[in-house]
Amino acid sequence: MVPSELDKALDGLVKAGFAGNKAELARIALTHLMSTLPRQMSHGYDLETAFSPDGRLFQLEYATECTYRGGSIAGVCCSEGVVLAKKLIMTPLMVTPNPFLKVFKINNTIGMVFCGLLPDGYLIVEEALRQMRVMNGLDIEGLAGKLFLFTHPFTQRKDVRPLGTAFILGGLDAEGKPRLFLLTSYGYAVEYRACADGMGREASKSILEEGYRADLNLEEARALAVKAVLRKKARAENVLVTSIDAKTKNFTDATVDERKRLLGRIFP
Amino acid sequence: MVPSELDKALDGLVKAGFAGNKAELARIALTHLMSTLPRQMSHGYDLETAFSPDGRLFQLEYATECTYRGGSIAGVCCSEGVVLAKKLIMTPLMVTPNPFLKVFKINNTIGMVFCGLLPDGYLIVEEALRQMRVMNGLDIEGLAGKLFLFTHPFTQRKDVRPLGTAFILGGLDAEGKPRLFLLTSYGYAVEYRACADGMGREASKSILEEGYRADLNLEEARALAVKAVLRKKARAENVLVTSIDAKTKNFTDATVDERKRLLGRIFP
Amino acid sequence: MVPSELDKALDGLVKAGFAGNKAELARIALTHLMSTLPRQMSHGYDLETAFSPDGRLFQLEYATECTYRGGSIAGVCCSEGVVLAKKLIMTPLMVTPNPFLKVFKINNTIGMVFCGLLPDGYLIVEEALRQMRVMNGLDIEGLAGKLFLFTHPFTQRKDVRPLGTAFILGGLDAEGKPRLFLLTSYGYAVEYRACADGMGREASKSILEEGYRADLNLEEARALAVKAVLRKKARAENVLVTSIDAKTKNFTDATVDERKRLLGRIFP
Amino acid sequence: MVPSELDKALDGLVKAGFAGNKAELARIALTHLMSTLPRQMSHGYDLETAFSPDGRLFQLEYATECTYRGGSIAGVCCSEGVVLAKKLIMTPLMVTPNPFLKVFKINNTIGMVFCGLLPDGYLIVEEALRQMRVMNGLDIEGLAGKLFLFTHPFTQRKDVRPLGTAFILGGLDAEGKPRLFLLTSYGYAVEYRACADGMGREASKSILEEGYRADLNLEEARALAVKAVLRKKARAENVLVTSIDAKTKNFTDATVDERKRLLGRIFP
Amino acid sequence: MVPSELDKALDGLVKAGFAGNKAELARIALTHLMSTLPRQMSHGYDLETAFSPDGRLFQLEYATECTYRGGSIAGVCCSEGVVLAKKLIMTPLMVTPNPFLKVFKINNTIGMVFCGLLPDGYLIVEEALRQMRVMNGLDIEGLAGKLFLFTHPFTQRKDVRPLGTAFILGGLDAEGKPRLFLLTSYGYAVEYRACADGMGREASKSILEEGYRADLNLEEARALAVKAVLRKKARAENVLVTSIDAKTKNFTDATVDERKRLLGRIFP
Amino acid sequence: MVPSELDKALDGLVKAGFAGNKAELARIALTHLMSTLPRQMSHGYDLETAFSPDGRLFQLEYATECTYRGGSIAGVCCSEGVVLAKKLIMTPLMVTPNPFLKVFKINNTIGMVFCGLLPDGYLIVEEALRQMRVMNGLDIEGLAGKLFLFTHPFTQRKDVRPLGTAFILGGLDAEGKPRLFLLTSYGYAVEYRACADGMGREASKSILEEGYRADLNLEEARALAVKAVLRKKARAENVLVTSIDAKTKNFTDATVDERKRLLGRIFP
Amino acid sequence: MVPSELDKALDGLVKAGFAGNKAELARIALTHLMSTLPRQMSHGYDLETAFSPDGRLFQLEYATECTYRGGSIAGVCCSEGVVLAKKLIMTPLMVTPNPFLKVFKINNTIGMVFCGLLPDGYLIVEEALRQMRVMNGLDIEGLAGKLFLFTHPFTQRKDVRPLGTAFILGGLDAEGKPRLFLLTSYGYAVEYRACADGMGREASKSILEEGYRADLNLEEARALAVKAVLRKKARAENVLVTSIDAKTKNFTDATVDERKRLLGRIFP
Repeated sequence: MVPSELDKALDGLVKAGFAGNKAELARIALTHLMSTLPRQMSHGYDLETAFSPDGRLFQLEYATECTYRGGSIAGVCCSEGVVLAKKLIMTPLMVTPNPFLKVFKINNTIGMVFCGLLPDGYLIVEEALRQMRVMNGLDIEGLAGKLFLFTHPFTQRKDVRPLGTAFILGGLDAEGKPRLFLLTSYGYAVEYRACADGMGREASKSILEEGYRADLNLEEARALAVKAVLRKKARAENVLVTSIDAKTKNFTDATVDERKRLLGRIFP
Repeated sequence: MVPSELDKALDGLVKAGFAGNKAELARIALTHLMSTLPRQMSHGYDLETAFSPDGRLFQLEYATECTYRGGSIAGVCCSEGVVLAKKLIMTPLMVTPNPFLKVFKINNTIGMVFCGLLPDGYLIVEEALRQMRVMNGLDIEGLAGKLFLFTHPFTQRKDVRPLGTAFILGGLDAEGKPRLFLLTSYGYAVEYRACADGMGREASKSILEEGYRADLNLEEARALAVKAVLRKKARAENVLVTSIDAKTKNFTDATVDERKRLLGRIFP
Repeated sequence: MVPSELDKALDGLVKAGFAGNKAELARIALTHLMSTLPRQMSHGYDLETAFSPDGRLFQLEYATECTYRGGSIAGVCCSEGVVLAKKLIMTPLMVTPNPFLKVFKINNTIGMVFCGLLPDGYLIVEEALRQMRVMNGLDIEGLAGKLFLFTHPFTQRKDVRPLGTAFILGGLDAEGKPRLFLLTSYGYAVEYRACADGMGREASKSILEEGYRADLNLEEARALAVKAVLRKKARAENVLVTSIDAKTKNFTDATVDERKRLLGRIFP
Repeated sequence: MVPSELDKALDGLVKAGFAGNKAELARIALTHLMSTLPRQMSHGYDLETAFSPDGRLFQLEYATECTYRGGSIAGVCCSEGVVLAKKLIMTPLMVTPNPFLKVFKINNTIGMVFCGLLPDGYLIVEEALRQMRVMNGLDIEGLAGKLFLFTHPFTQRKDVRPLGTAFILGGLDAEGKPRLFLLTSYGYAVEYRACADGMGREASKSILEEGYRADLNLEEARALAVKAVLRKKARAENVLVTSIDAKTKNFTDATVDERKRLLGRIFP
Repeated sequence: MVPSELDKALDGLVKAGFAGNKAELARIALTHLMSTLPRQMSHGYDLETAFSPDGRLFQLEYATECTYRGGSIAGVCCSEGVVLAKKLIMTPLMVTPNPFLKVFKINNTIGMVFCGLLPDGYLIVEEALRQMRVMNGLDIEGLAGKLFLFTHPFTQRKDVRPLGTAFILGGLDAEGKPRLFLLTSYGYAVEYRACADGMGREASKSILEEGYRADLNLEEARALAVKAVLRKKARAENVLVTSIDAKTKNFTDATVDERKRLLGRIFP
Repeated sequence: MVPSELDKALDGLVKAGFAGNKAELARIALTHLMSTLPRQMSHGYDLETAFSPDGRLFQLEYATECTYRGGSIAGVCCSEGVVLAKKLIMTPLMVTPNPFLKVFKINNTIGMVFCGLLPDGYLIVEEALRQMRVMNGLDIEGLAGKLFLFTHPFTQRKDVRPLGTAFILGGLDAEGKPRLFLLTSYGYAVEYRACADGMGREASKSILEEGYRADLNLEEARALAVKAVLRKKARAENVLVTSIDAKTKNFTDATVDERKRLLGRIFP
Repeated sequence: MVPSELDKALDGLVKAGFAGNKAELARIALTHLMSTLPRQMSHGYDLETAFSPDGRLFQLEYATECTYRGGSIAGVCCSEGVVLAKKLIMTPLMVTPNPFLKVFKINNTIGMVFCGLLPDGYLIVEEALRQMRVMNGLDIEGLAGKLFLFTHPFTQRKDVRPLGTAFILGGLDAEGKPRLFLLTSYGYAVEYRACADGMGREASKSILEEGYRADLNLEEARALAVKAVLRKKARAENVLVTSIDAKTKNFTDATVDERKRLLGRIFP
């Protein structure tokens, strides 16, 4: 087929109503081609938890994508204590504090907050509560290890999908020292001084990196965590922030008024 | 093939009886293209409970579609108590109240109503009843958590399909306070002051948002719930409404006469 | 290819023996196209018990198709008792009453009749008998719930097919009140005053809707049930009808003579 | 491509050795088309035990085909007793009576004979023997029900194939009355006065329908059963016939001489 | 495309190096066609143990093919005893008698010999030895039944392949009578006076049919069995022959000298 | 199609917007061909743990690719003791020493370090700790064998993916002798005097081969291990190095100052 | 398309950069064709352990290919004892004797050596050690049988891959007689006087066949085994040789010096 004939054929197809114009037709054809190519390259390796030729686990990468779709979370650790924050997307008539969308209290000095798939996150909260009940003297580092192992089979078995959630565990360890752990759906667990995940995580991390100082006091840490999850001005109802005080060992959810005050300071 | 020849060829195909006219032929071709494209894009990710490249779980989204096909439900919470309502599509000779299509009484102060796939909803009703039997002192919030965990494996295992049902749990908690929880097939659980799901859920939610006030009395809450599930005038037989009174702790199904009175008030 | 050439090519294919005439050829091509299109649209969603994009469960719909292929059943409830009827397709030398094709007696006041796949129906009969043995004081409503739950896994697991049967459970409840339940392969369970399923179910239902009155006596109920399953004149051997008398608590299979008398009255 | 060119092209293909002549070529093309079409229509629904869109279970239908490939069986019931017969395809040097190809004696008054897949039939024989050992007082009707349930999972599970066998159970029930049951690979169980299955089953059934009378004596029943399985003259070694006498309760395999005498009478 | 052009095109393809000559090209095309056709006709039905539309079980047929690839076996029964023989394909430096390639002694009066897949055959030998240990008083007919049932799941389950072996069980029954059973990978079990299986089984069977007489003595039976497995002159090392004497109850492997003598007599 | 026409057709496709220029078009075509070819050659053999026609296990090779993506590890053994080193890629605000990214202490004289998938490596660390708890007197060689067997099923089962991790086990054996074992995701376990794995493993190995001498002292071994994992100048925070002293039996993580000193010496 | 046009089209494709020259283009096309054809012929039959139409088990054949890729092994049996040898491919800094790459000592008079997949071989070594612990009085023939049965499921189950290893078991039996068994991944077990497997097995076997004499002394047997695994001159470090003396019952690994002496004698 010569170019002029191709051109005419395309015109004919447009006239016949297959597409609005030739550009659209080309777009359809390209979309079709594109949807074919990647499928051949990843087909199979990404349908179940198997390695691709270049050693990637697509299902885990896709699960990670899922954690970027649901909510923003952040944690900040300082010598005075630990802070956990969560951006809350309110739907009309929703109750706050909501028992399924909050900073969960695992025990008096450990809290947990997750982003991504709500049921998967809640499953891990329940596992954390169970671990604290059955294991005497488990501190926050030990709990992080247990939850790490709890999530491992979901990164390896082919009869279940991976967990689509990332979570931050914050609290005091056996010696009363503030600690902060981030565990992701990919199965990674790392200790941080301050961390964030979920929607807009890159911007959140930049805020933390800019604002973090080793000598933050608890009030400053709260402000930093709130800033990291919100990133821009929002209503007090749209953020949850909880702090665990290393000295008093208090586990405190900030009231709406406290959150308003924090917001006023952060986004004046 | 030049346009004029394309045109003639299409004429020939029409004459040969492949299609009624050229427009129909174009529609067939487009349908074919369309049926090919989405299949290539979602093929596999949506056949079992696996993550798609953009982090979605298609099977859960499809199960949610299922909950939109069967019935409308609503719940309204006020200081005087909780109300649960369900639109009932009557088939001839059906019995009312129907033991499998009703507002289920989980215990004296907790009720439950579901939309979507009848057997899946009933399975959860049975699980709720079982939980109340085996767990001493389980209140409505605890029950919501248990049912949340009960439904979790159906959102993750590959050897069963997800549950195609959404349900509202309403009742009094351990302190006698009215509470209302919505749990969906996607695995989300959220507490609301008023909520609706199932067929026409968007319109139902708008009615709730417009009509809800924190100081509704129980009679007004009943009217609002009925309005939310029906959305337009219907017969008293086509709606079920149950209220749990926070003061008297009565669990009361509205009689046909009461429903008629409510309907007269709502759709005068 | 221009139309005249298309036409000639089709002629050539007919001459070469590929098809009897051009119309047949077009039919073959269309059949081919049709068999391709739906396969692409439902491929996979209907091979196992998974949700389709629009929230349907094709395997359950197909199982329902199966219940439309094997037999007709009906039940009628009145204040004097309950009636169950089944159309019996006699094959030569078959024995009547046939232990596997009959109105099954679950206990003294509960009967059951099924249509669709014989082994699936019998499996449920055995389960009903087992439930009555192991559960003390189970009445007909409780039994309906148990059988509802028994069939549930078959609507959800991927390692077995759904049950291809629908059945009517009729009898007296704990207070001696006549009750009637229809359970389908789709997993629905609903209480009716009168109901029918299986082959020709739409016509059967119309007969019930026209003929049902709340004040039917047991004899009239028997006539109505027989009329619903047969729909047109047939031999007494081709229908089974059993009644459970609410007063005497008798479970009575109609004799051939009684059935002849009924038939004479219904189709004079 | 115009017809004359098609014709020439076909000639060319024949000359090139692709096929012997144009008719053969057309046959190949049609076979190809045919092998494509049904595959698209049944693809998947018939690979495992799943429902097709029109509610059929192809694997069970195929298993039924299997029962038509291996042997012919028949049973006849009369007031004097029951008769079971089997056509025996002798291979050279085979031993008769053969312990794996015979009328099996389940207990003193119950016999069983199967057609189709030998190992599947023998599996059911073993199950019947086991049931008689473990269940006290199980009579032939009860045994038929038990075997019905034993075969059910093979009609439903996806990790095993269905059973490719049909069998006739004949004998005396708890009251000493002669009874006869036919159970097929499709999972159907029906009681008959006389029945036949396996290769040539339609002709066998016609013989039974023509020859059956309620007042047959045991000798006449034997003749009828033999005639039904053989359908035309054969050697005495090619038929097995066993009778269970309702009066004497004798379970008797006919000797070769008796079989010769029967054959002489049937096919004079 | 006209024939002359087809011819030229084929020439062109040959010149371009796609094939050595036109005949080869035609062979490639035919091979392609052939490899396509059977795949479409049997695709799926033969990948796992499922029924094909015409009621066949391809995997069992393929397993049977496997038994035709590995070795030849034969058995002969006479009033004086039973003989089992196996053709032994010697590889250099192989030890004889080889503990894994021999006539296996199950107990003092029962032997077994198999062809096909070595590990599958040995698995059944071990099962036979286990059965003799755990079941008191099991005679050869009972053992044949047990092994029949042992192999059954391999003809039905989809998570294992069928067994690729056929075996002959020979020996004395509870009354000291010589008996011979052939069990195949297809799951058939039949008693014979003389039988053969494996490579060249058709020729072997002809030899048995020609040479078998009911009054063979044990020495003649040995000669017949050896002749059946070898079919033409071979070295004594290439055949194994074992006899079980009904009178002395001796289980005797023929020595090399005895085998030489037999061979001299059979192939003079 | 002649070349000039091909050329024109390609021009036409470029003009129609299918590609930017002809070179791009050719690249697309080649990519398509390439994406098709490897898929046909490895399709299936590499999706699950199955052998390819040439005896390879692609999934294990892909898992090995995974171990090349995450981190560098090295171990060096000398008469004075054993050294384990790991390159640490620091992300902002990460805590060091990090409980999940370090040289793990299995017992007083055994250490372990892994590269590749973090959760898989941690799983093996936990298994090593468990083995030391449950097996009395297990020394490092015994532990290597146990971990070898622990990882074996992951190289063979089809319902889980292989482990994407390689690890070095270093320490003193039962006789106090320094030993070093490398275990890979492919399932290999080999004892070395010095070894490295993970990203840049080839360069790391060259450094070890060049620098290793049997008479290294512990300080020199530390320098060699650090050089092998870093390969070029880096900050002290980016490397972890632990030594186990054969004489003192001390298990010592190098401090930041010690690491700085080592780095100064290695990369002056 | 006529040949000259085909020629020009090929020229065009070369010019467009699809291939370097026409020969390469033809090679690509042929490779494509070849990769398509075998896939159609073996597709499916070789992805899991299922029979192909001609009765082959491709996965086992592929596993056998795997045993040809990793190492060479040999064994020689003589009246003075048994010898096992293995070619050792040394990587830099590897330790010798290596606990995972050696002639394994199963008990005082039984040794084992394997080629192919290291973890699979080691799994069998562990099984052999376990068998010797749990089974009292198990001699080498009994052990060969046990290991034969241990490997059987891997040749039959579809949820694991076959074992990619072959191994030689050598030692003294219950009567102190030297014995030698070869077991392959295909599941075959055969006793030999001398045998070899793995890479270059055909050449190794020829060396054994040429050099084997029944009256070899142990020193000559060692030389023969070493020659068989090396096939050409190599360093002493690249071969392992172990002998079990029938008289002294010593299990002796040859020292490097002894191996040097042997090599000097074999390859002067």
